[in-house]
Amino acid sequence: MLKRFYHAFQPRKISRDSFEILPSHELLQHLGFLRQTQSGLVNWLPIGLRSLNKIENIVRNRMNDEGHAMEVQLSTLSPKGLWETTGRWSNTELFKLRDARKAEFCLTPTCEEDITNLMKNYISTYKDMPLLVYQITKKYRDELRPRAGLLRGREFLMKDAYSFTGNREDALKMFDQMNAVYSQIFTDLGIPFVSAWADSGDIGGDLSKEYHYVHPSGEDTLLTCNNCGTSSNIEKCESFPQEMNTHLGDVNVKYTLNKAHDTLICFYYPKDRQLNWNLAMEAAEHDVDGSMRYMGEDEVLKIFQESNEDLLFSRVLRIMDCRLSSRSNFPDFPLRQYLKSNFGQIDDVSLVEAHEGEICGICNEGLLKANKTIEVGHTFHLGTKYSEALAAQFTDRDNKISAIEMGCYGIGVSRLLGAIGEITRDKQGFRWPSKIAPYRVSICVAPGNNEIKQRIKQEIQETMGNEIMDKFNEKLGLGARISYSHAIGIPLCIIAGPKNWPNVEIEVRGKNWLNDNIPTWREAHKKLHDTLKWRVIEGDSKPEKHIVPIEHLSRVLALLLKDL
Amino acid sequence: MLKRFYHAFQPRKISRDSFEILPSHELLQHLGFLRQTQSGLVNWLPIGLRSLNKIENIVRNRMNDEGHAMEVQLSTLSPKGLWETTGRWSNTELFKLRDARKAEFCLTPTCEEDITNLMKNYISTYKDMPLLVYQITKKYRDELRPRAGLLRGREFLMKDAYSFTGNREDALKMFDQMNAVYSQIFTDLGIPFVSAWADSGDIGGDLSKEYHYVHPSGEDTLLTCNNCGTSSNIEKCESFPQEMNTHLGDVNVKYTLNKAHDTLICFYYPKDRQLNWNLAMEAAEHDVDGSMRYMGEDEVLKIFQESNEDLLFSRVLRIMDCRLSSRSNFPDFPLRQYLKSNFGQIDDVSLVEAHEGEICGICNEGLLKANKTIEVGHTFHLGTKYSEALAAQFTDRDNKISAIEMGCYGIGVSRLLGAIGEITRDKQGFRWPSKIAPYRVSICVAPGNNEIKQRIKQEIQETMGNEIMDKFNEKLGLGARISYSHAIGIPLCIIAGPKNWPNVEIEVRGKNWLNDNIPTWREAHKKLHDTLKWRVIEGDSKPEKHIVPIEHLSRVLALLLKDL
Repeated sequence: MLKRFYHAFQPRKISRDSFEILPSHELLQHLGFLRQTQSGLVNWLPIGLRSLNKIENIVRNRMNDEGHAMEVQLSTLSPKGLWETTGRWSNTELFKLRDARKAEFCLTPTCEEDITNLMKNYISTYKDMPLLVYQITKKYRDELRPRAGLLRGREFLMKDAYSFTGNREDALKMFDQMNAVYSQIFTDLGIPFVSAWADSGDIGGDLSKEYHYVHPSGEDTLLTCNNCGTSSNIEKCESFPQEMNTHLGDVNVKYTLNKAHDTLICFYYPKDRQLNWNLAMEAAEHDVDGSMRYMGEDEVLKIFQESNEDLLFSRVLRIMDCRLSSRSNFPDFPLRQYLKSNFGQIDDVSLVEAHEGEICGICNEGLLKANKTIEVGHTFHLGTKYSEALAAQFTDRDNKISAIEMGCYGIGVSRLLGAIGEITRDKQGFRWPSKIAPYRVSICVAPGNNEIKQRIKQEIQETMGNEIMDKFNEKLGLGARISYSHAIGIPLCIIAGPKNWPNVEIEVRGKNWLNDNIPTWREAHKKLHDTLKWRVIEGDSKPEKHIVPIEHLSRVLALLLKDL
Repeated sequence: MLKRFYHAFQPRKISRDSFEILPSHELLQHLGFLRQTQSGLVNWLPIGLRSLNKIENIVRNRMNDEGHAMEVQLSTLSPKGLWETTGRWSNTELFKLRDARKAEFCLTPTCEEDITNLMKNYISTYKDMPLLVYQITKKYRDELRPRAGLLRGREFLMKDAYSFTGNREDALKMFDQMNAVYSQIFTDLGIPFVSAWADSGDIGGDLSKEYHYVHPSGEDTLLTCNNCGTSSNIEKCESFPQEMNTHLGDVNVKYTLNKAHDTLICFYYPKDRQLNWNLAMEAAEHDVDGSMRYMGEDEVLKIFQESNEDLLFSRVLRIMDCRLSSRSNFPDFPLRQYLKSNFGQIDDVSLVEAHEGEICGICNEGLLKANKTIEVGHTFHLGTKYSEALAAQFTDRDNKISAIEMGCYGIGVSRLLGAIGEITRDKQGFRWPSKIAPYRVSICVAPGNNEIKQRIKQEIQETMGNEIMDKFNEKLGLGARISYSHAIGIPLCIIAGPKNWPNVEIEVRGKNWLNDNIPTWREAHKKLHDTLKWRVIEGDSKPEKHIVPIEHLSRVLALLLKDL
């Protein structure tokens, strides 16, 4: 039998000094988790794939057991026709291709079109629903500015689930239940998370929640109330100043028209703030008939200039942000011809993006705190946007034909690995929760101590099985092996040598990110330290170490892993 | 909690009569394994995905445990540059696309280019090898004539492994070891298989073995010797007639030139046979310097016509198939100007494609039998074709820079599902080996007997866990449920009702395809039938049935499954 090498992707030298300065995606590459091939594209290497598979299985298990969802796997090649029907073929982030017979396809970035088109074959009456279907597959998005690493890749692993229900009430129940499943998934993953109300954006629908990790490297911002605890994406967050009507500086104005083009709506807000378009629309929608469209400054000025002194609008509605006062410095009204009697005004609404320190618009009591976050999951109630476009209909209880109510629920599986890596890393490397570390335990012996290694392996094989990492580059000495084990984030590192044999040392690299208090092992240690001859060495700056004789190793490993 | 439906993809009516007339891919679709979206593209549905995952894991486990291979997952988007370097970008079966920045990619149909380009970063000296790396990922091939179903899809799941060794000797050892692993994998899959020497074709390299299932629906032909047992692909098979030199009919001739264009080689063979180009090249290569190229009839005639009566070739080599005799009807020699002294002749070699009933060219004793087959795996010794093109080099023991010796090893994972489905199906539907059936056991009770179902489920939950199928369309009666269970190929079907309770019936649908003799359960039954109150009903035309009280169900299920 030819010997095989398992350490091909390990670095040849372990220089811990370099870890600190490398960005996460470079550290992932240096340590052998993956290798970038092109901007936004990666090859997964063995330890990276192990962690990725673990995350995937955490998601899958909850989707099956709690979500009662059915797993499918749709083709990656989706025909142009479907996307034209829903109006999404023009999306510039689609990877598009033609086959030899000139038929056009995209590589699926998400599968609302395909799943709707599939499921309509299997749903004919309300008795066939509710249904929940999901897949965990590679998705493709031709990001013009892909971020290095896994946070915004052009090829990524995503879990996407889709629900099909016969009425809005069931759809909202399903939305709530899926959010409960998401809480379980993110708790399983072992990193504190925040869920936040969010804007539905391009996907459509009217209810949407995002799941975030709070971290300074994040690109998103969440605002969280210190009283009611609600978190919201900045696009959804309404806030009020601690003192109303106190703005003394310049005022900005943005204009919009109603659909009939006979009403001009003017939003006034402090010049040093950003207009929040969602809030602006909400403020206006009760007083304006029909939908509105946003007009750019230039467009409005052009209309005003070409107005030729005619009366342009039958109504002008002015909406004032609550921060403005009568002493604010308002811009001139640009129309010279108007009737005072046509003017309406709404005061004291909040029109701008929330700032930290302002008052929560939901409870009207607490103060908002802004956090940088990384988004890792999203749930949507879609309504009938896709089912109507693709004629996915069913016969309801009253024998009427209706469009199916849908929801969709995404989790970025490879993104999670990138995000958790970023969050857990320290000077020594990554520090994964044990459930997603590439291995749970490593065996580090100095080169040449193969018998000791084999004896340890034999001892823990039954309990640790496939979770043991013991194959190191032979050139690495004991110290470098320990450093590598710590760097790739294996939570428990077994260190042994002839000197203390048959005692072995367990160095704890892992960490409980959800709950750092009172690890349960301390209770066990109190009761069992005599029986198991189990000693603990703790220091302020050094990792915690446990020393046990080889015959009790499995038991102590299991007790320690409970906390990690 | 909203109730969920799990039977969405089950047919609404089970009409067994239709099963027999449906082609396998339509039966797979009718029963809910998958759904074709476009020619050569499928969506995998829950039970199909379960079977696919099982095949995938059988392959993965052997690759890890016996192959000692490292699993990776390469990006599906492979840059044009790599494929231009190896000369394969012109392949018309590549799906090609451009990203927004106009960079060109193909969707990988196989990954020799990408893996070589990856691994050269991790291999610098002979000490870094041997290495064996594999992945199980979707591959893409723009087949102009995709076959319906899974046998020749445009998107398919493939296991592709690649070996890297420092010399030819190790490469050949690796090739042998991988073939041993393949034997284990195909034995695990539970269907009799044949391995055959094959031609390397387009992939390159000089040693190649194929793995086939013998089945009349197959598109390939294998010839197998009834004495030495060797199987060969028709392109590789040498055969001899039972009586040499007895052909009395017309003779065909094909011409080729050596590289220097000064030697004409003429292959003579019976007109009613096909020239085997591999055999022809082998027959000529010892007597001709340099490589040869095949010339079409037209090309040769043109040269002859334009010859202008000059002496064209310094040498003419005539190679005679062993079937020809002096009394065969030879064509005229087309050149009028030649020197008799320039002529050479090789007699009694075999030049044509083997026929069933001829003598094996390997042992020279047995007779060949021809079988239609389905190819499901392929192993190649590649040599240095890709490593040379992509500069994947290493420093050898003598400090010299050499190209890495490579091998590649493929298994069509989704193709296997299609092939095994085709092989195992009968009037009742599919009859998978138990390891790849979507579930191992079903619980069939008449609608309304939910308590009995729950009691059975509880009894077998611990031993059968996730392998129990008990969710049927509520509209289906007991008979239809049993038919569906049999149709999707669940090997054991538990049937129960209030009448015989607490006895339950196990109907055996499964079959041991590798060894149908003396199932081990008969031994167990002899010893245990009293203790377990285990009765057996067997009839010629009906499936075997076992009757046991509920408390012994788990034990009997386990005994029966051993044989399936």
